Amino acid sequence: MSDSTLPDPPPNAGDASAPPIRRYRTRYEDALFEDVLPFWETHSPDDEHDGPFNNLDRDGAVYDSTKHAWMLGRQAWTFATLYRDVEERPAWLDLARSGLAFLQEHAVRPDGRVFYSLTADGRPIYQQRKIFSECFYTMALAAYARAAGEPERLREAEDELEHIWNGTFGSEEARRPTHEGQPDVQSLAVPMIFLNLIEEVTGPDDWQRYRREVRTCIARLQRHVHEETQTVRETVRPDGTLADGPDGRLLNPGHALEAGWFLRHWAERLDDDDLAATADDMARWAFADGWDEEHGGLFYFLDAEGFSPVQLEWHMKLWWPHCEALYAHLLRYARTGETEAWDAFEKTHRYTFAHFPDDEHGEWFGYLNRRGEVTHRFKGGPYKGCFHVPRTLWRCWRLLQELE
Amino acid sequence: MSDSTLPDPPPNAGDASAPPIRRYRTRYEDALFEDVLPFWETHSPDDEHDGPFNNLDRDGAVYDSTKHAWMLGRQAWTFATLYRDVEERPAWLDLARSGLAFLQEHAVRPDGRVFYSLTADGRPIYQQRKIFSECFYTMALAAYARAAGEPERLREAEDELEHIWNGTFGSEEARRPTHEGQPDVQSLAVPMIFLNLIEEVTGPDDWQRYRREVRTCIARLQRHVHEETQTVRETVRPDGTLADGPDGRLLNPGHALEAGWFLRHWAERLDDDDLAATADDMARWAFADGWDEEHGGLFYFLDAEGFSPVQLEWHMKLWWPHCEALYAHLLRYARTGETEAWDAFEKTHRYTFAHFPDDEHGEWFGYLNRRGEVTHRFKGGPYKGCFHVPRTLWRCWRLLQELE
Repeated sequence: MSDSTLPDPPPNAGDASAPPIRRYRTRYEDALFEDVLPFWETHSPDDEHDGPFNNLDRDGAVYDSTKHAWMLGRQAWTFATLYRDVEERPAWLDLARSGLAFLQEHAVRPDGRVFYSLTADGRPIYQQRKIFSECFYTMALAAYARAAGEPERLREAEDELEHIWNGTFGSEEARRPTHEGQPDVQSLAVPMIFLNLIEEVTGPDDWQRYRREVRTCIARLQRHVHEETQTVRETVRPDGTLADGPDGRLLNPGHALEAGWFLRHWAERLDDDDLAATADDMARWAFADGWDEEHGGLFYFLDAEGFSPVQLEWHMKLWWPHCEALYAHLLRYARTGETEAWDAFEKTHRYTFAHFPDDEHGEWFGYLNRRGEVTHRFKGGPYKGCFHVPRTLWRCWRLLQELE
Repeated sequence: MSDSTLPDPPPNAGDASAPPIRRYRTRYEDALFEDVLPFWETHSPDDEHDGPFNNLDRDGAVYDSTKHAWMLGRQAWTFATLYRDVEERPAWLDLARSGLAFLQEHAVRPDGRVFYSLTADGRPIYQQRKIFSECFYTMALAAYARAAGEPERLREAEDELEHIWNGTFGSEEARRPTHEGQPDVQSLAVPMIFLNLIEEVTGPDDWQRYRREVRTCIARLQRHVHEETQTVRETVRPDGTLADGPDGRLLNPGHALEAGWFLRHWAERLDDDDLAATADDMARWAFADGWDEEHGGLFYFLDAEGFSPVQLEWHMKLWWPHCEALYAHLLRYARTGETEAWDAFEKTHRYTFAHFPDDEHGEWFGYLNRRGEVTHRFKGGPYKGCFHVPRTLWRCWRLLQELE
């Protein structure tokens, strides 16, 4: 563990056995506002076109001018959200506007689908089969609408959400497997992303009109929570029984931790203690199974029965599962006061801050090998951008302020 | 390096400075006939249906009953080829027949496309966009036709080859990028696989009717050989200039080594020394760039300009690039007698035999981390089967016999 993992203890820290909340709060605050956000503010803007660059090397240089819609939507969400929640800095709103404008002008197709990647000047390169380009575009739209005070864009976000929902669940055709032998299974990612999207598109006072959709997603998500084996499965049958083969055995601890806190937010809105308990189980189980006792850190994938996952990168340590773990554990601690939750937060914090931040060029590395050595030097790529790190730092910072 | 890396020196080994050809020959012979082939003969058959299982755990147990068409085609090719070349063992021909029968009955669609994966009893699961399921089916068909003496099946293989060729190159539509910003680039895998397919479908005396196709593939392959930087690029523009971004900078040393020996085979058929020199350059460059000086072994991917490849698994050591390197270097040595080629073969041999074979359960592991530690315990998966290891052992064994 490096010296920079924890700040010096404050003078007169008070009760020695109490968690050093203030130290953590200043640490997350500094990381967010002095390190992570400035990296993207400085290096991501494209001077020629709307739409920030997302493929940034270790020092912020653009190593690929392709613009990935997931990343543009997520970065626009981040800056719009912080503009509204933290401080009305015009540069933040403009960064959000620029990313959203690029998506609206170039990425959104007439049929409502959103391209996955485009050239710097907005010519489409690739269309994914998945729905996530649409989802992150919708998140950006909703956050920007609130930040800029443009309610008509919030209607657009609601329309887009309805469009994705209908494409996913709306017709018998959408539900039916394409080929005869294709197993009838469902993926954890789908109810997860909808729970998060509905939370983003609605406010604390107007989510009730989505009550049916929220209940559908919660029911779907609960099918992945497998009590008997105390695991959260990535893929299950629609009746909640285990699917066959490596897909049915697949564990993705980062996903389970993220789904856990999405669900906890909804448990609180719904004032449902049983649901909160389920959410906390998800985080606890994923942490217990996912932590590498030998080298520390969370594995990317595991097989519930101990076979080797077929994913080549299963043994790597990625930044985002650690981000999700930080907030999932801290939220559990803030709501329950359980020592176990605080200890899990601290253990994750120590590993995360010792391994991911780049002291030389700022921001965080994204990919480590099992031993915790950096394998990829870039800060931004097709799947890592200005999102998981600032979202976690911001959410943990706010929680730590509450606890303080 | 383990003690098992090299066999004991034979008594009276003769000239101490000459390569110990006989020792290597017996080593490859034993590995092929005593270890690798028996593993698949014992563990892959499905007692209930045609079509061997390809997802075999470390000890040969089936951990996933899905049948992957690439693997079934490749295993059928292996057993049919050895039946014809080595010994007419009925069990080998029957294994080849069983894999081919499954593909013909269940995987080949009325439109000529071939499903990528199917259930054990033959219901289709997934269709890839890529052409490789079709290619490996065609290889199996050709090898079986010769082994079983069924010339009408050779006609089927030729028809299938023509079908894949026309789908790939035949129409303007096939060549045109789908989206406006999609770069007009070509992939090394395509001319490679066709050169190998034409070699497999034709014999040494009847390939001339494919002269035009062979020349087209060679011209396409040569565009990937970048003299100025002495690299073999995975993706180039159709005029042979470098493509932009990470795709244009991507190096895949195993692919370059494999393409090198495919090309050398054709250089010999065409009696073209310049082409043979190009083929040898490909192997030399890929080996120079691809070898990990710190931990040994060949990287899976590299970036020609030193950026981090975006592929998460770039730093891993996979079995197949080492297989391709063994035969590419030994073939160069056999044809040129160059010490450098022998040294490259020996260096690859030492790493390969020290790291991949499983002394306890037989056959080879497929996936190691950068340090050479096993990361995946299974012997067969969606992309590793009864193919690269036996093909290399067989080809090297035959070459070593020649050299002896």
